[in-house]
Amino acid sequence: MPRFKCLVSYDGSGFSGYQVQPDKRTVQGEIEKALSKIHKGSFERITGSGRTDSGVHAMGQVFHFDSNLNISEKKWPTVLNSLLSSDISILSAEEVGLDFHARFSVKKKEYRYKIHLQTVRNPFTRHQAFHYPYPLNVEDMRKASLAFIGEHDFTSFCSSKTDVEDKIRTIYSISLNVDEENLIISYEGNGFLYNMVRIITGTLLEVGRGKITPENVTEILKAKDRTKAGKTAPPEGLYLWKVTY
Amino acid sequence: MPRFKCLVSYDGSGFSGYQVQPDKRTVQGEIEKALSKIHKGSFERITGSGRTDSGVHAMGQVFHFDSNLNISEKKWPTVLNSLLSSDISILSAEEVGLDFHARFSVKKKEYRYKIHLQTVRNPFTRHQAFHYPYPLNVEDMRKASLAFIGEHDFTSFCSSKTDVEDKIRTIYSISLNVDEENLIISYEGNGFLYNMVRIITGTLLEVGRGKITPENVTEILKAKDRTKAGKTAPPEGLYLWKVTY
Repeated sequence: MPRFKCLVSYDGSGFSGYQVQPDKRTVQGEIEKALSKIHKGSFERITGSGRTDSGVHAMGQVFHFDSNLNISEKKWPTVLNSLLSSDISILSAEEVGLDFHARFSVKKKEYRYKIHLQTVRNPFTRHQAFHYPYPLNVEDMRKASLAFIGEHDFTSFCSSKTDVEDKIRTIYSISLNVDEENLIISYEGNGFLYNMVRIITGTLLEVGRGKITPENVTEILKAKDRTKAGKTAPPEGLYLWKVTY
Repeated sequence: MPRFKCLVSYDGSGFSGYQVQPDKRTVQGEIEKALSKIHKGSFERITGSGRTDSGVHAMGQVFHFDSNLNISEKKWPTVLNSLLSSDISILSAEEVGLDFHARFSVKKKEYRYKIHLQTVRNPFTRHQAFHYPYPLNVEDMRKASLAFIGEHDFTSFCSSKTDVEDKIRTIYSISLNVDEENLIISYEGNGFLYNMVRIITGTLLEVGRGKITPENVTEILKAKDRTKAGKTAPPEGLYLWKVTY
């Protein structure tokens, strides 16, 4: 049965996250409903690269599914989008070998966190950026970000609600870019724990405001204690940007 | 009693338009509710530069109100925003003379219409641009736009639902700007009739697709007949951009 790899973008504000849950509107749930219709009820599951939380967005989430239907890779986005609501968009589909797995084949993930810095709030970005109208020392934030690069035990930067045992992950890069209105923090790594990007972001924001020094960050990492790190930044600023295989 | 001129931005997607209506959520209604709270129930009405329709946005709508409260022009935006939901943002307030009137003192209005041209839809702009994924001859649209410049009877480009008798308006400029993803059409004029920008935009889009020639547009204007012009473009692409006094 041919396997298809799909790229999907979604505005997370109307979803209870990516992963399917009973009686909740989820990205996976909506896509599976559409695929079930196309397969006249016989369809089962799609496999995503990983979950995103309630309110978190995706520019380039990836999932795969297997289908025997006579629909070409070029046709799949049109067919699926016609059945999906406008807050999800299937950007592309590609036929791949059965050795491709959207979760297990991941080499690298990129997340971006968007912080709206202007004093006055912007009604058009209320669900698409974190409004944080405070002066930030971005140079201190850059210095602090270096502590996260490389392989570390990220227990201090992981929600205590997780059931994952292995908290060791590798971050390849963190970059901070400021434009007129926003600070965008990009994170690349081999994988991210539950709430990890949002807790690192919340901690970097406290560095930016002088509440935590760049030197403290290394100590927080070493402590392996969630209570030492900063607040979890809210979901509306977070985008799963790119998944590399 | 001091008068204040306020600049307000709103995402129109959650409102039944600007103007107050019984049992509907409107921009004017929400602002008046907030002002009533601040004035402990005694507040009456704000005066806007004009209406915007259901789903239409504003970057710089203007309204005025009179208040005896001891609140400075600098404080008004903070006070109002704290009571308003995040899809409205009071950008600034300025004390003005009693001869200032948000509607009657208008010299010029600018509207912008945003058309999202990419083939695949973008979930983040679904309420903030008109998705129109068709090839457009923008040069023909520019040629056609010249027919609207100057003083004209815009009966052909006004909704038949209007009760305004004088259909003569002056358009100062129309400019078309294409970036990677969008075509933005900017309109400046001394005033615009009901649905006028949306009908002109819908007509220009039909010119862009070759269904109407640039020469036809002059004939449509002369016909003074709404049925001769193009479709009314949808509200989600339209922004009241700037009001000049």
